[in-house]
Amino acid sequence: MMAEATRILLDESRIPRNWYNIVADLPVPPPPPLHPVTSEPVGPDDLAPLFPAELIEQEVSAERFPAIPESVRDVYRLWRPTPLVRARRLERSLGTPARIYYKYEGGSPSGSHKPNTAVPQAYYNARQGIRRLTTETGAGQWGSALAFACAQYGLECEVWMVRASYDQKPHRRSLMRVYGATVHASPSPVTSSGAGILAEYPESPGSLGIAISEAVEVAGSDPETRYALGSVLNHVLLHQTVIGEEAIEQMAAFGEAPDLIVGCAGGGSNFAGLTFPFLREKLAGRMDPVIRAVEPEACPSLTRGTYAYDFGDAAGFTPLLKMHTLGHGFIPDPIHAGGLRYHGMSPLLSHMYELGMFEAVARAQTECFEAGLRFARTEGIVPAPEPTHALAEVVAEALRCRETGEEKVILTALCGHGHFDLNAYDRYLSGEMEDFPLPQERIDTALAGLPGA
Amino acid sequence: MMAEATRILLDESRIPRNWYNIVADLPVPPPPPLHPVTSEPVGPDDLAPLFPAELIEQEVSAERFPAIPESVRDVYRLWRPTPLVRARRLERSLGTPARIYYKYEGGSPSGSHKPNTAVPQAYYNARQGIRRLTTETGAGQWGSALAFACAQYGLECEVWMVRASYDQKPHRRSLMRVYGATVHASPSPVTSSGAGILAEYPESPGSLGIAISEAVEVAGSDPETRYALGSVLNHVLLHQTVIGEEAIEQMAAFGEAPDLIVGCAGGGSNFAGLTFPFLREKLAGRMDPVIRAVEPEACPSLTRGTYAYDFGDAAGFTPLLKMHTLGHGFIPDPIHAGGLRYHGMSPLLSHMYELGMFEAVARAQTECFEAGLRFARTEGIVPAPEPTHALAEVVAEALRCRETGEEKVILTALCGHGHFDLNAYDRYLSGEMEDFPLPQERIDTALAGLPGA
Repeated sequence: MMAEATRILLDESRIPRNWYNIVADLPVPPPPPLHPVTSEPVGPDDLAPLFPAELIEQEVSAERFPAIPESVRDVYRLWRPTPLVRARRLERSLGTPARIYYKYEGGSPSGSHKPNTAVPQAYYNARQGIRRLTTETGAGQWGSALAFACAQYGLECEVWMVRASYDQKPHRRSLMRVYGATVHASPSPVTSSGAGILAEYPESPGSLGIAISEAVEVAGSDPETRYALGSVLNHVLLHQTVIGEEAIEQMAAFGEAPDLIVGCAGGGSNFAGLTFPFLREKLAGRMDPVIRAVEPEACPSLTRGTYAYDFGDAAGFTPLLKMHTLGHGFIPDPIHAGGLRYHGMSPLLSHMYELGMFEAVARAQTECFEAGLRFARTEGIVPAPEPTHALAEVVAEALRCRETGEEKVILTALCGHGHFDLNAYDRYLSGEMEDFPLPQERIDTALAGLPGA
Repeated sequence: MMAEATRILLDESRIPRNWYNIVADLPVPPPPPLHPVTSEPVGPDDLAPLFPAELIEQEVSAERFPAIPESVRDVYRLWRPTPLVRARRLERSLGTPARIYYKYEGGSPSGSHKPNTAVPQAYYNARQGIRRLTTETGAGQWGSALAFACAQYGLECEVWMVRASYDQKPHRRSLMRVYGATVHASPSPVTSSGAGILAEYPESPGSLGIAISEAVEVAGSDPETRYALGSVLNHVLLHQTVIGEEAIEQMAAFGEAPDLIVGCAGGGSNFAGLTFPFLREKLAGRMDPVIRAVEPEACPSLTRGTYAYDFGDAAGFTPLLKMHTLGHGFIPDPIHAGGLRYHGMSPLLSHMYELGMFEAVARAQTECFEAGLRFARTEGIVPAPEPTHALAEVVAEALRCRETGEEKVILTALCGHGHFDLNAYDRYLSGEMEDFPLPQERIDTALAGLPGA
């Protein structure tokens, strides 16, 4: 019976009661963030103007299983647990003996995994009496997730959206407004950092770095306002572990243990969310999957970046983070997977990569969309551009299994649907999509701008 | 425990094994379609150029429980059973003692209930050796569902999309292409009916009636091609009854029996899909819900149309259907709920309305979007414009319950998500959305054009 199953759904009572903090199980603790002026480790007081106390505590904690507040679990019930699906039709189309499973996060209100952390972030801020959250967004996945979460807790939400996306992706902007958020095109005249840029470059298309600066400026200058980040930080990765905890139970219901787990990695929260609980099981000797991150050829922080202290933003306003980075001045080519266009990688994941706890590969954009199209035509769901990177790797691995006959069990994270990204598929189908091989000299130039380089 | 549940999910083994054909339980059979020239009932031979034999059989059958082919159930497993959700947060925001439940169909590959019938239609055509399906689409929900279904069965899919939508909704067009369909702007130069219109009106924005004519022309002229329709016909309504069958089991799991069931109705397939199985239970005396259809003020075929034989399309190419109609020449004002802009109502539902088996009301566009926005901000899901009509009625009923204190159990069909319709929400939020009260003289004029009038 179970061998025949296609989708494993869990009852809402199976929503995890705890997040999993992998820091508790690392042989070496990750290096701390440093203050850019003093080069001393950043303390809770430095972060208090930007984040509420409970998130700062989670950021530095080594507690293995922090409890998920019941209020957060109650909002999770709107879409969690999410399905784990055996991709039988994809397998058949590839003629592979591999068994392919995907954990699907696209059924959330905003269509991606981002609400998993947006909800607890809004909750902890609301509990501390905060009135308003600010954030930045590029393609809009994070901004719409935070807008949804703020609506749940009666918080105001103010989003700085990179102007190029604001103009090109009006639907994501509209989704944030539907949830009640105020959306500014960044650079905006309402902050001094934005106004300064506009004075010099009135036609600036903006950047994630500029948008971060604006959101941080507003949060830092108002005691009732805080800032929220959608990836990279420890507490964000922590919140995403609900994905992996559910997947462990669902794979067991299928009677399977994964041989290979594949996820796309931009800032790293989707990848960490699926893999950290499986890594715990691996560290405990209860299973032995290979874990592999997939990044875009155009922005390969793990596979071609360096491991060094760097700024988290383009403008150099954040603490220094020890991470795999292409340099904070690196501007990735305009691939459609906006969520993977980040110059660095989560410091926690970077540290674990140094410890040899997972592998990384890079994939070119067109092969990713080819895999996304195959997935849509077989499994029905149109994947967002980001998870097509993981799918390209899954397809390649499944085809290797066709050669070898290996019945490998592959698990991947399908972290969002592509209903907002159909223009990208259209470009692919029209033969107008480009790849962006990255010359080494561009990396070298950007790395020359590292602090202390 | 169950009283606390928010979402009831069913295991895939609970996908219904049979559709429910309500014709078997009607006290009077519905009037047959008539040939427009002979005025004789249309027979299977008349329909054979357009539909495969098994669908024609289902169109005229009185078999109570036709079996769902295993191949169709296997495709349904990609997203069915769909969740039934208690809208606790919506209830709280309304301060109502009513208990509100919604059956959510937006998690399907194309984001609506339409694949429930697209899949069996593709299946029966493929079984008969048909190579290609043609259809028309307005806003694109139906076209993308059929494109998905054809990809599952290796059929070519050719869609005529009303030019106004083709130009304004490029993402729906792209979704059809992702699934492998060919999409024409209608009127198109590839059919004689389209070419004729283009010769006279090169700038024609098209209409659903014109698009139907083109799709039917191509299907009728090629023995390996058939035509597919996404609503109105008996076999389409039949296929949608999987919605209601699952909902009966899920409401029982909640320990509830609905007092009121509300659905939006354009051609009628979503409304029929949810309500027919409950009507069977009502006819058998096992429950006693009030059943209510909600249509747009701008296109009120049930509440202000007449019950008469009329053409199903604008051009007068189809058989004559006895139905509630505003006249096949009626052109609804441009409301955003494209799926509800149909001059008629399913003949089967029209017949049942005459038998007094359900009620109907009409709602204005802005109050529908107001309800949709409230739903998004409480329940997270952004509803498509069509089901906001049902939500407006649910909200009004829940507010009545707040006055009376009645703990009414309300069930509604949330038949699709609104991620493709955010421009409409933007117009609402910007205060630019209009209502379209319908003057009686426009109805009178259109009804004067009825065949035989």
